[in-house]
Amino acid sequence: MKHKLFKGVIAYPITPFDKGDRVDIPLFRKLVERMIVARVHAIAPLGSTGVLPYLTDAEKEEITETTIRQVNGRIPTLVGVSNLTTERTVYHARFAEKAGATAVMIIPMSYWKLTDDEIVKHYDTVASKIAIPIMVYNNPATAGVDMSPALLKRLLQIANVTMIKESTGDIQRMHYLRRELGEEVAFYNGSNPLALAAFSAGASGWCTAAPNLIPELNIALYEAVQNNNLEEARKLFYQQVDLLKFIVDKGLPRAIKAGLNILGEEGGQLRGPLKPLTRTEVSELEDILNGVKACVA
Amino acid sequence: MKHKLFKGVIAYPITPFDKGDRVDIPLFRKLVERMIVARVHAIAPLGSTGVLPYLTDAEKEEITETTIRQVNGRIPTLVGVSNLTTERTVYHARFAEKAGATAVMIIPMSYWKLTDDEIVKHYDTVASKIAIPIMVYNNPATAGVDMSPALLKRLLQIANVTMIKESTGDIQRMHYLRRELGEEVAFYNGSNPLALAAFSAGASGWCTAAPNLIPELNIALYEAVQNNNLEEARKLFYQQVDLLKFIVDKGLPRAIKAGLNILGEEGGQLRGPLKPLTRTEVSELEDILNGVKACVA
Amino acid sequence: MKHKLFKGVIAYPITPFDKGDRVDIPLFRKLVERMIVARVHAIAPLGSTGVLPYLTDAEKEEITETTIRQVNGRIPTLVGVSNLTTERTVYHARFAEKAGATAVMIIPMSYWKLTDDEIVKHYDTVASKIAIPIMVYNNPATAGVDMSPALLKRLLQIANVTMIKESTGDIQRMHYLRRELGEEVAFYNGSNPLALAAFSAGASGWCTAAPNLIPELNIALYEAVQNNNLEEARKLFYQQVDLLKFIVDKGLPRAIKAGLNILGEEGGQLRGPLKPLTRTEVSELEDILNGVKACVA
Amino acid sequence: MKHKLFKGVIAYPITPFDKGDRVDIPLFRKLVERMIVARVHAIAPLGSTGVLPYLTDAEKEEITETTIRQVNGRIPTLVGVSNLTTERTVYHARFAEKAGATAVMIIPMSYWKLTDDEIVKHYDTVASKIAIPIMVYNNPATAGVDMSPALLKRLLQIANVTMIKESTGDIQRMHYLRRELGEEVAFYNGSNPLALAAFSAGASGWCTAAPNLIPELNIALYEAVQNNNLEEARKLFYQQVDLLKFIVDKGLPRAIKAGLNILGEEGGQLRGPLKPLTRTEVSELEDILNGVKACVA
Repeated sequence: MKHKLFKGVIAYPITPFDKGDRVDIPLFRKLVERMIVARVHAIAPLGSTGVLPYLTDAEKEEITETTIRQVNGRIPTLVGVSNLTTERTVYHARFAEKAGATAVMIIPMSYWKLTDDEIVKHYDTVASKIAIPIMVYNNPATAGVDMSPALLKRLLQIANVTMIKESTGDIQRMHYLRRELGEEVAFYNGSNPLALAAFSAGASGWCTAAPNLIPELNIALYEAVQNNNLEEARKLFYQQVDLLKFIVDKGLPRAIKAGLNILGEEGGQLRGPLKPLTRTEVSELEDILNGVKACVA
Repeated sequence: MKHKLFKGVIAYPITPFDKGDRVDIPLFRKLVERMIVARVHAIAPLGSTGVLPYLTDAEKEEITETTIRQVNGRIPTLVGVSNLTTERTVYHARFAEKAGATAVMIIPMSYWKLTDDEIVKHYDTVASKIAIPIMVYNNPATAGVDMSPALLKRLLQIANVTMIKESTGDIQRMHYLRRELGEEVAFYNGSNPLALAAFSAGASGWCTAAPNLIPELNIALYEAVQNNNLEEARKLFYQQVDLLKFIVDKGLPRAIKAGLNILGEEGGQLRGPLKPLTRTEVSELEDILNGVKACVA
Repeated sequence: MKHKLFKGVIAYPITPFDKGDRVDIPLFRKLVERMIVARVHAIAPLGSTGVLPYLTDAEKEEITETTIRQVNGRIPTLVGVSNLTTERTVYHARFAEKAGATAVMIIPMSYWKLTDDEIVKHYDTVASKIAIPIMVYNNPATAGVDMSPALLKRLLQIANVTMIKESTGDIQRMHYLRRELGEEVAFYNGSNPLALAAFSAGASGWCTAAPNLIPELNIALYEAVQNNNLEEARKLFYQQVDLLKFIVDKGLPRAIKAGLNILGEEGGQLRGPLKPLTRTEVSELEDILNGVKACVA
Repeated sequence: MKHKLFKGVIAYPITPFDKGDRVDIPLFRKLVERMIVARVHAIAPLGSTGVLPYLTDAEKEEITETTIRQVNGRIPTLVGVSNLTTERTVYHARFAEKAGATAVMIIPMSYWKLTDDEIVKHYDTVASKIAIPIMVYNNPATAGVDMSPALLKRLLQIANVTMIKESTGDIQRMHYLRRELGEEVAFYNGSNPLALAAFSAGASGWCTAAPNLIPELNIALYEAVQNNNLEEARKLFYQQVDLLKFIVDKGLPRAIKAGLNILGEEGGQLRGPLKPLTRTEVSELEDILNGVKACVA
């Protein structure tokens, strides 16, 4: 049986930059610490939220080490190590393992649409070089490739490939994964607006950037589901759905940075070509965050 | 406040034909009665399941009258009266009202993609000619037009337009409807594989052909949700999801007829160009129905 | 070898209504005659442009007979006889044949997505009941079903299925048809904005409503291609492309009626739910028609 | 007026690797020379065909310098300098300019979907740092972002942004560009199967990897169009369309490498995760190349 390493709210920190376009490590530590204190269930640096593809190798290494040192064993860590080439993916996966990551997450980035065989070989090569578990991440919108349930099933044959994160935004995919792979295989929801539907369908966890802004509501939703209280879960979901939709629509790094500023927190700078939200977007986000606050109060 | 006329499992009977390609009224009555006895919450003749667009005006009238006579006030009825032209839609809506229908369902059929103004005018004209409530049905896959949430909101301004049935298969639409229209407006799920997600999201009812085959499971799912028992609802959903997906993938009239035969019931003939399932499809359906039976037992 | 019955500009008349929502036969005759006089190569009543699906059986019969009487053998006629049920399609195909149509056009209308076998059976049944040729029409946007090139190839095995009209809007489909079916099988373009690309790819003809407004330009484009004069064809195409795009975007019956009025011609009434273009749309169309006139002058 | 720097067949060399996964520079020079000798009109290294995103900065620089040295002024060069971050794009654009490139090509790579303002800022920043012209490349399938014609128009306001390469595969985009931007703005076709349609629509050139395999046929097609000989162009197009479709469907680097081997040329190794074509695919390609040879002979 495949072991479920992660459950609940898996929080994705942004990667903040200083005015000289360098990663702002002190701020990054502070943002991670805020979420740990808020009691999220895991920390996942170097995801899409963390603008992984915009970083140099050295920056990725520094963020990996910083995260693990900051978390300091309090909760598990899930480090993003995806890369276009197999060689670089292996490199970063090994680095994460040595640094002490609980597991790594890998999306099959592709410029050229990969065949199923190329994807299997890619994961297999990486998996053979590390001993920690791998979460396979399916997100056609950012990766350019949509892994079929059949392919995901093939990948799960690889010994340390034990978890699947689904971000197609199609709830039926999760039904299929559950039916086809059995209850033992952990699947995780990566689509924020599907949080309620995915937990209803049996997702083990929710991979999300939202805890940068509203960790209490995110965690409360998970707990309501754990308590088998659908009415409470529904109520909590509708309190946060506007925010979940907004941060997805505007792009997670841009929206989270703006949201932190609205909450009176530092969010750092964005790396170009990414630009801050427009004034109109910021004021829309203010309204949404005020609405959330009113609900919770 | 808009009143919720329907709730729970709204069952769609097929329209069976005899070997001479005439509607088989005695069999139709029997199929309707089976579902009433199984305790579905409403009967909805002349939907897609009932091959509405393949019927002559006289056939539609006979089915409308037969349904209402058979139901005989035991549960509410929701009669499909959609038509390409406004004139014919008015005609059938009035007929249904006079025959005693509780409400009518209207999808904006279109050959030429209708503008929002054309759709509003269409509903407005029909609504002004009847006094019973109208359920607006959004299903781009069969109607060729996708009504935006903003348009649905406009339609709800019309006095007797009080209910919305959503069949886009996108659970986020339901979130939006609930958020935007408020809890008072009843929305109904028309996408079988979304049954769990839609009830979780707060759908008032489920419009479905599945009770032709598995009414007990359909009703049990609704009741688990009513009892705020998410774990039970999830278990029941996974017991029926394969069947729900199968009947959608193969086309409801064809799949339901085959399923009835497998269960030892008459299903009548299909009207051309529709043809029976292939032998392979029938045996796949047998496996699924056996699986369902094993779960329930 | 399959014979090419039609070539060049196959003109689709609109079906005008009078203020009492009856088909305006005298106006219909006048509109057909205008296009014959302008030297189009064929007349095709009861297409999408002619709002076929909005008409009663009696109306379809009257339009069929009126067209054939008006054309009076001067050019070939291609009568639309599509229907949801096989039985009604046979009925109208026989009627067209008896009335003297050169050929019939059939799109596999579907409410329920038809399987390939159902589509083959549908065409085969109709074909076996008539002796005149059939043009198969593929247009997923209006029919709800997209016939693959492989299916079209199967249909061409039926003796009197001899022509294909493609309206997917994907020029690569035409390349495929030509490569796969050979030069002997005539394929026709039904996507107005693809007129130049389709003729370049070897289309035998262009099925279009545009000759209701600009027959000279449509015919000149065809003739430039026939004269192997690509530069001239390109110039002529760019003179008309804005109009071609406009009438498609706004819906052919609505746009043609408005265009006729702008040109000082009667266009009759539309049948509900279709409504006239808005004032803004009409003035956009005026600008386009003025632009066309300036080009030609 | 914007000057048309490039016309005709703009050839994209692959980037071959040796068995140690290093760029095989001698083989790269040989492949470039073959195409120059075959009389292509320009050379474009570091495109998608050249697996730009899989290369290190040092590798990109070596390929840029090697290309320019090998071409040695005989024909113009168009160097790909796209990068996820603005800072790196500026870096490579400057490098290409100093190395002597005629122009640079930039696609707005994106992991996070960029807003229009972010894209404009990106191009504007790069353009302000170099004096050579920029070709804007629109290809949603590989870049993840689809630039609207309105956005392309905005980008053309930047002084040295003078050319557009369109690879959406939608011929109507090219019509729109021509109509909206005027005949002075050069647009280039980047979709191989649209070669005939794009030239018919007035494209100035064809950006293609096909000259790695069939330069004579590619050039002959362009010349037939230049000679206003549509029939000849159509004939030549149908002789090569199967190959054009194949190399796109299988991925250009993989298909070109296999094709070179079939033709008895070296193609080098692929960089992982890319893998060679399967045996079945290779034999399909053999059949296609034999068919091409038979046509030409």
